[in-house]
Amino acid sequence: MQTLRVELGERAYAIHIGERLLSRAELILPQLDLPRVAIVTNTTVAALYLEPLAGALGIRGVDVISIVLEDGERYKDWTTLNRIYDALLERRCDRKTTLIALGGGVVGDLAGFAAATFMRGIPFIQVPTTLLAQVDSSIGGKTGINHPLGKNMIGAFYQPRLVLADTAVLDTLPPRELSAGMAEVIKHGLIRDGAFFAWLEQNMEKLLACDRDALAHAVHRCCEIKAAVVAEDERETGVRALLNFGHTFGHAIESGLGYGNWLHGEAVAAGMVMAADLSRRTGLIAEADVERIIALLKRARLPTAPPDIAPERLLELMRVDKKAERGKLHFVLLDAIGAASVRADVPAAPLQQALAFSAAA
Amino acid sequence: MQTLRVELGERAYAIHIGERLLSRAELILPQLDLPRVAIVTNTTVAALYLEPLAGALGIRGVDVISIVLEDGERYKDWTTLNRIYDALLERRCDRKTTLIALGGGVVGDLAGFAAATFMRGIPFIQVPTTLLAQVDSSIGGKTGINHPLGKNMIGAFYQPRLVLADTAVLDTLPPRELSAGMAEVIKHGLIRDGAFFAWLEQNMEKLLACDRDALAHAVHRCCEIKAAVVAEDERETGVRALLNFGHTFGHAIESGLGYGNWLHGEAVAAGMVMAADLSRRTGLIAEADVERIIALLKRARLPTAPPDIAPERLLELMRVDKKAERGKLHFVLLDAIGAASVRADVPAAPLQQALAFSAAA
Repeated sequence: MQTLRVELGERAYAIHIGERLLSRAELILPQLDLPRVAIVTNTTVAALYLEPLAGALGIRGVDVISIVLEDGERYKDWTTLNRIYDALLERRCDRKTTLIALGGGVVGDLAGFAAATFMRGIPFIQVPTTLLAQVDSSIGGKTGINHPLGKNMIGAFYQPRLVLADTAVLDTLPPRELSAGMAEVIKHGLIRDGAFFAWLEQNMEKLLACDRDALAHAVHRCCEIKAAVVAEDERETGVRALLNFGHTFGHAIESGLGYGNWLHGEAVAAGMVMAADLSRRTGLIAEADVERIIALLKRARLPTAPPDIAPERLLELMRVDKKAERGKLHFVLLDAIGAASVRADVPAAPLQQALAFSAAA
Repeated sequence: MQTLRVELGERAYAIHIGERLLSRAELILPQLDLPRVAIVTNTTVAALYLEPLAGALGIRGVDVISIVLEDGERYKDWTTLNRIYDALLERRCDRKTTLIALGGGVVGDLAGFAAATFMRGIPFIQVPTTLLAQVDSSIGGKTGINHPLGKNMIGAFYQPRLVLADTAVLDTLPPRELSAGMAEVIKHGLIRDGAFFAWLEQNMEKLLACDRDALAHAVHRCCEIKAAVVAEDERETGVRALLNFGHTFGHAIESGLGYGNWLHGEAVAAGMVMAADLSRRTGLIAEADVERIIALLKRARLPTAPPDIAPERLLELMRVDKKAERGKLHFVLLDAIGAASVRADVPAAPLQQALAFSAAA
C-alpha cells in the first residue's frame, strides 16, 4: 500500500492506494466520529463490493446502512440525491454518521454532495471503484449533480476525510469503463508530465490488460499530480483549472448527447483532441503532437472525434458551461505535451475551424 | 451607520446597521467581483424594496436580474430552490455573479443555499428585511431548506460577504413579524446577556412601537452577540449550539403544525418557555425566572405555550432534529437569565413533565 496526502491544512487527508484495501476496516475506523456509516453505492458495484466493505466494518462493530442507487450518469440528479436524503432521514442518520461513497464518479459526486449538504455537512469517505474515480474524481472535493441546462451545475467543494483506492477492484471493470478512466490518466500526463505521457505510450497495452504494477503506477502518479494541484488551488481560482483540459468540449458533448450516452471519459477524450487541435491552430503545439495524442487515445480505445453534433450547437452548450464567464469561453490549451495554460483570448476563427474540422472527422 | 465585523479569517465580513442603507449602493459595490447581481426576494418584499435596491445598483452600472419567489416558510423547499437555479441558468449567470438575498429568514436561507451550491459557490450578500433576519438568520452562514422529515435538514455553512441591515425597513414589518423577530432578540439576552434582557424588559413597548433608537440598539446588541459566538465556533461544534435555545422544542412545533402555520419566532417563543420550564424542573433556575421570561414574551405578543400537539408526538419530532444524536436529545438549558449550557443528560421524568405541563397550559 502506498499513501499520499492532499495537503489542505485542517482539511488535509490521506489517499491509500493498493490491492484489497476494501476490506481493511482498520484504515477506515480512525476516521469515524462514531461507529456508524451509510454506504452509498449503485446496483452494479453493490453486487461485487458492498459485502466485503460492509462486512469488514460490521465485524468491527460498526453499524452499517447501505443506500443502493441505480447505475448511470443519468441518475446524477435531484431525484437520486433526494433518495439519499430520504434514506438517511428514514434510517435516523445524524451528524456523526459517516457517509462512504463506494463506486465510480457518479456515486462519488452524488454521495459527496449529499454529505456536504445533509445537516449542513457530515463526515465523508471516498472508496472509488473505477479507474476514473481513482485517478481523478474521488480526489479534490468536487461534488455535485447535473442540471438539465448543464453538467455539475449544482454542487459544493467538500473534501473527504480519506480516499481508499483499491486497485484490485479494477479487475472487474468493464473494458469500456477502463478506457474511459484512461482518458483522465492521459490528461494528467498531457497537462503536467510529459515523461508520464511517454511512459503511457510505452505501457498502454499492459494497462488495458490490467497489469497490476502498471495500473498501480498510473494511479499513483495521477493521484500525486492531482493532489499537488488541488493543494495549490482548492477552489479552482488558478492552476486547478488546468485539470479541465478537454472538459469544456467534453461537457458540451455529454450535454448535447444527453448524459450517459457517452461515458464522461469518452467525451473528455474527444474533447482533448479538439483542445489539442485548437492548440495547434493557435500555434502552440505542432501537428505531430496532435497526432501523438490521437494515436495514444486510439490505443486506449477511446473516441478521437466528437459525435454528430452541429458546431453551432456545441458552441452554444459550451457557453453555459460553469467555466464560461458571461458567455466568454476560457480554454485550457497545450503549450507542449506535459504543459498547459488557460486562455481567455482564443480568436473565433481557429475555434470555428477546430469545431468544423472535428465535425467533419 | 454602525459597523461590526464577523471575525472568520479569510471569510470575515462586515455587518452594517443603520437607516436607509438599502439604496446605498456604494456599500455593496466593493464586494462585487464583477458588476452583475441576481437579487432573490419574495413577492411581499419586492413590492416594497426591490426597486430602491435594484435601482441604486443599476444607476451605478450594475447589471441586475431579480428572482421573485412566493412568500412563506412553506416555500423553503427543493421546488423553490430549483426555481432559483433555473432562473440563474436561464439568465446565464456565472461564477462571478453575486447573489443578493433581499428578505427575511426564508429568503436568506434559500438564497444562501443557492449561492453555496450554484456552480459550487458564488459570492453572496445578505440584505435582511425582517427583525428576525437582521438579528439572527442573516449572520453566521447557516443556509438551507426544509425536508418533509425535518426543518433545515438540507443545507450548508456558507458565509455572506456582507450583511446590510437597514433598520428603516422594519417600519413596514407586520406586527406579527416584528413580534416573531423579538423572540430571537429575547433569546440573545437569555443565553448571553442578563443586562440586555433587563433592558428589553424596560423597552419592550418602545421596540414594538418601532422606536428607531431602541430598535437600532437591539439589532446592534444582538448582532454583536451573534457575531462573537459565530466567530468563536463557525460550524457549531461548541458554543454556537447555545443559539439554539428554544429551537429543539420550536422546530418540533413547526414540523408538527406543518411549516408556515406558526412563524419560526412564535414556535421559538413557546419553545423557550418549554426549555425554561425544563431548566427549572432540573433545578437550574427558579420559578421566578420562568415567570419573568413568560411575562416578557407575553408583552412581546408571543405565544408562551405550544399548540395542541400530543407530548409523544413532540418528542418523536425532536428525535429527528439535526441536534439529536442517535435519537438522544441534547437540550440548551438556562443556568440563569443571561447564561446557558448544552445538556445531554436530561432525565426522562422532568422532560415528560415539561411536555405534559406545556400541553396542559
